[in-house]
Amino acid sequence: MSSRAGAAQDQGNPVRRDRPVRGARTHTFAMTIEEAKVTVARGKDFKVWAYQGQVPGPLIRVRQGDTIDATLTNHTTGSHTIHWHGIRQHGTWRMDGTPGINSQDVPPKGTTNYRFVADREGSLWYHCHVDVPNHVGVRGMWGPLIVDPLKPLPIEKEVTKDAILMFSGWASKAADDYFAMPEPTGSFDYYSINGKSFPYNQPIRVRYGDVLRLRLYAVSIPVSFHLHGHDMLITHIDGLAIPNPYYSDTVRVDLGKRVDVIVRMDNPGRWPAHDHDEHHTHNAGMPPGGVMLIVEYDEVGRDDPWYMWRRKEFDPDFYFIESMKKGHGLIPQSGFRATPLASSAAELTQSASASASASASAKEGEHK
Amino acid sequence: MSSRAGAAQDQGNPVRRDRPVRGARTHTFAMTIEEAKVTVARGKDFKVWAYQGQVPGPLIRVRQGDTIDATLTNHTTGSHTIHWHGIRQHGTWRMDGTPGINSQDVPPKGTTNYRFVADREGSLWYHCHVDVPNHVGVRGMWGPLIVDPLKPLPIEKEVTKDAILMFSGWASKAADDYFAMPEPTGSFDYYSINGKSFPYNQPIRVRYGDVLRLRLYAVSIPVSFHLHGHDMLITHIDGLAIPNPYYSDTVRVDLGKRVDVIVRMDNPGRWPAHDHDEHHTHNAGMPPGGVMLIVEYDEVGRDDPWYMWRRKEFDPDFYFIESMKKGHGLIPQSGFRATPLASSAAELTQSASASASASASAKEGEHK
Amino acid sequence: MSSRAGAAQDQGNPVRRDRPVRGARTHTFAMTIEEAKVTVARGKDFKVWAYQGQVPGPLIRVRQGDTIDATLTNHTTGSHTIHWHGIRQHGTWRMDGTPGINSQDVPPKGTTNYRFVADREGSLWYHCHVDVPNHVGVRGMWGPLIVDPLKPLPIEKEVTKDAILMFSGWASKAADDYFAMPEPTGSFDYYSINGKSFPYNQPIRVRYGDVLRLRLYAVSIPVSFHLHGHDMLITHIDGLAIPNPYYSDTVRVDLGKRVDVIVRMDNPGRWPAHDHDEHHTHNAGMPPGGVMLIVEYDEVGRDDPWYMWRRKEFDPDFYFIESMKKGHGLIPQSGFRATPLASSAAELTQSASASASASASAKEGEHK
Repeated sequence: MSSRAGAAQDQGNPVRRDRPVRGARTHTFAMTIEEAKVTVARGKDFKVWAYQGQVPGPLIRVRQGDTIDATLTNHTTGSHTIHWHGIRQHGTWRMDGTPGINSQDVPPKGTTNYRFVADREGSLWYHCHVDVPNHVGVRGMWGPLIVDPLKPLPIEKEVTKDAILMFSGWASKAADDYFAMPEPTGSFDYYSINGKSFPYNQPIRVRYGDVLRLRLYAVSIPVSFHLHGHDMLITHIDGLAIPNPYYSDTVRVDLGKRVDVIVRMDNPGRWPAHDHDEHHTHNAGMPPGGVMLIVEYDEVGRDDPWYMWRRKEFDPDFYFIESMKKGHGLIPQSGFRATPLASSAAELTQSASASASASASAKEGEHK
Repeated sequence: MSSRAGAAQDQGNPVRRDRPVRGARTHTFAMTIEEAKVTVARGKDFKVWAYQGQVPGPLIRVRQGDTIDATLTNHTTGSHTIHWHGIRQHGTWRMDGTPGINSQDVPPKGTTNYRFVADREGSLWYHCHVDVPNHVGVRGMWGPLIVDPLKPLPIEKEVTKDAILMFSGWASKAADDYFAMPEPTGSFDYYSINGKSFPYNQPIRVRYGDVLRLRLYAVSIPVSFHLHGHDMLITHIDGLAIPNPYYSDTVRVDLGKRVDVIVRMDNPGRWPAHDHDEHHTHNAGMPPGGVMLIVEYDEVGRDDPWYMWRRKEFDPDFYFIESMKKGHGLIPQSGFRATPLASSAAELTQSASASASASASAKEGEHK
Repeated sequence: MSSRAGAAQDQGNPVRRDRPVRGARTHTFAMTIEEAKVTVARGKDFKVWAYQGQVPGPLIRVRQGDTIDATLTNHTTGSHTIHWHGIRQHGTWRMDGTPGINSQDVPPKGTTNYRFVADREGSLWYHCHVDVPNHVGVRGMWGPLIVDPLKPLPIEKEVTKDAILMFSGWASKAADDYFAMPEPTGSFDYYSINGKSFPYNQPIRVRYGDVLRLRLYAVSIPVSFHLHGHDMLITHIDGLAIPNPYYSDTVRVDLGKRVDVIVRMDNPGRWPAHDHDEHHTHNAGMPPGGVMLIVEYDEVGRDDPWYMWRRKEFDPDFYFIESMKKGHGLIPQSGFRATPLASSAAELTQSASASASASASAKEGEHK
């Protein structure tokens, strides 16, 4: 109880540049933006501007107090930035990435550097802050930024599987043309988790006794996330521990916000988890689709002949669970790699090597 | 305070099948699904698939730890299930009612059995889990499931009137054809409480000194529920007591969620209660309508010549207040009975007798 | 802690007419409704019915326990009321302003009187309760009502700048015709704070060390309000202190609700603050626009050549910060004055004098 009150107190006092954290490190990496397309549902491609060539963008994970030193190169035909949502940018306001307000955008072929302390803990994210309804709304310009807290809650230390789910919408009308529509978020007809619509996405596989953390991100659609068979303990909102965690069977995540829940996996079965906004559970009108997945306990098997995912080709890192075991730095993920567009082939050659060096930097930056 | 902490602790530890609750009972009943139509607003009928021939479906009420043994028979031309939203299904995952994932749907003329422990308390609900945007979105396939807690809060024991309000939308374009639209929830033009739009619905009548509990269910639309003249104490979210109840004049209920509020009726008057999303307070463009009702104190009368409901024919059970006095089991409610469709007349003959036996079972199942 | 519990307890027990508060005053003022138009974005005018000829309506601010005695005169061609959202109207239910339910509307040229005790504290508001989807939805019939609490929280006493932000949508299709559409809220294409869309609105200017309170009102659109560079402490919901304040970087305000946040201004910079619902951050499809503003610290200047507001003509009262220093009563604000429509010129002559007397009353009503 006192530790919780302490944690709440800390939230008003983030780490400050002039009082460095013992053991803090600097993570230096190169980032790119690529023109590419992603397949959101079967046969349904969307043009994106992809950080590091992938959607979602690569996981960036550091410890509170660490410094991030990211060099961004823009290989696309549009202007962009990175805004680090949730970082206070204490004393470094020009690194906030909002063009025309506290910084300038990065033009095609341009490069810029972002250097700042991860002053505040939790489930943060990064995204472009140019023409946000288009770039964040339907161009996949977003990725997770996890800042491990200096003082985690006891229950956080029990977590055995740490998953990231980013919810977004897609507009078919804007799929093929980067500038088709001035405001595409009002025309969503596909909905996804980590860029893929059900059943084109993946299960979360667990065992009895696992303690599953779900970091829920409302990127471009809000969700009412319902997990069958369990109540979820809501522990963090916008990455910050709340004073009074409570259980719910359906968790609301409003736009731009993040909610972390922790679930004790004590009930073997196959359990759907989905948005209870039914408007988000179809693919262009065909249900089931959109924001849905299945949580599979190993104990019950997948053999029922009517089970829709009995032959699913499994990607254990689709929810970043494997990436979250890889320590700190920038963690690229081949499973999210988008298909490069021919028009930017030349740049992509460069970006591939940039990615490689980013990966190297990431490894260098790890600290255990 | 300690009792509250205890309650929160209990939420992580539901009743388990292998540790039965003293005095627990088994409620055995038959349920049907009928083809019918409901009148949502004056002259505005919608085709539904109605549990037990009614919309909302019949109240099911049990005590935490009781067993529900429900046999479902499908008298419609489509396939369906019952998902018991909020029940953990601890050890009974195949009873969860999600087709293709943990169970199979019930085809036309088919029958299935659901048997499970009501392991978790609170304001739960049941609904079909086949083609949810259509079946739950606009076909009325939902009803309340109340699980009385083993350890109620002190304030719950003071309640004199216990009301259930289920909020949903309706799409005229899909009204007459069961398969008119693949995704009708984006075309809502009518909005209702317990299936009726204002002013086609009913008042809640109270007396000074009543303690009114409102169980608010966001079935297919979210609501911002504003009660004039009172602040509402928010006590439960998704059926679970929250650690720190607080007062609001407008209560948000997000999709799939339930919020319970308790209000001390200390302010005689006639008070509207309505969604503050103004888009939900009209009937096909004609305000006032949709999600709205009037709370009438007996003390102030209904005689003003300009009072719109001065001659209202009163149904005291429209918000389940009378049904909630009837103990445990399945509680059919004639006021919600939908009009059978000719096409399913034969089946309906059967279902009528099924309903009668359900009613009998319900009585049998009661325990005080 | 005990004081907080005490505050929560008080919420269930508002000030009552029969137990007057020591030092309570009566604020008597005249209010009008005018036909006028407001410019929401560059070149984009909307017809409104404006309380006191302004949108938002004038600030009304009193102390909990004070009496409000407002005489309303309707200078428009439609019928209207004032509903005092959040006031309990304890013992004065006929002053609630809901036509056909607890009172009658005020016809064109009509007058009525509202007299009641401000029985409940906090960030309240007033709005018309006739044809709400039109009158509140797109006609600007809303304004802030601040009731200073008898027992403020310690942190409330530290506030140096107290700002009011009211969020609303606008529908071009209904801009020029008062009765163009039966239900315009579904056609919003402009979004605003205090009636102006970014960048047509204003910055909030602060200095290091300021303690900024933001009173966030979801009038006709819900918002996910994100302030860069800071976490906001959520202290009040619907005007009532919550038991456990917590920090967030993005604050949800649902329709009809108010959320108060308090922010210690400890991070000099230029910081955008905006709705993270990207659908609300454009003007008829052109981003950036809509629900956005910039918080400017004096310390960092406004000289960058690329800064979009480097030559902004500053209105220090756009967020009511100056008005909130003027004590109690009705506080008219010339900056929000709408352009009178020719058709109601005659009435406006009357209303101008009515406004003048209202202003006089307001001064009279002040108590320090």
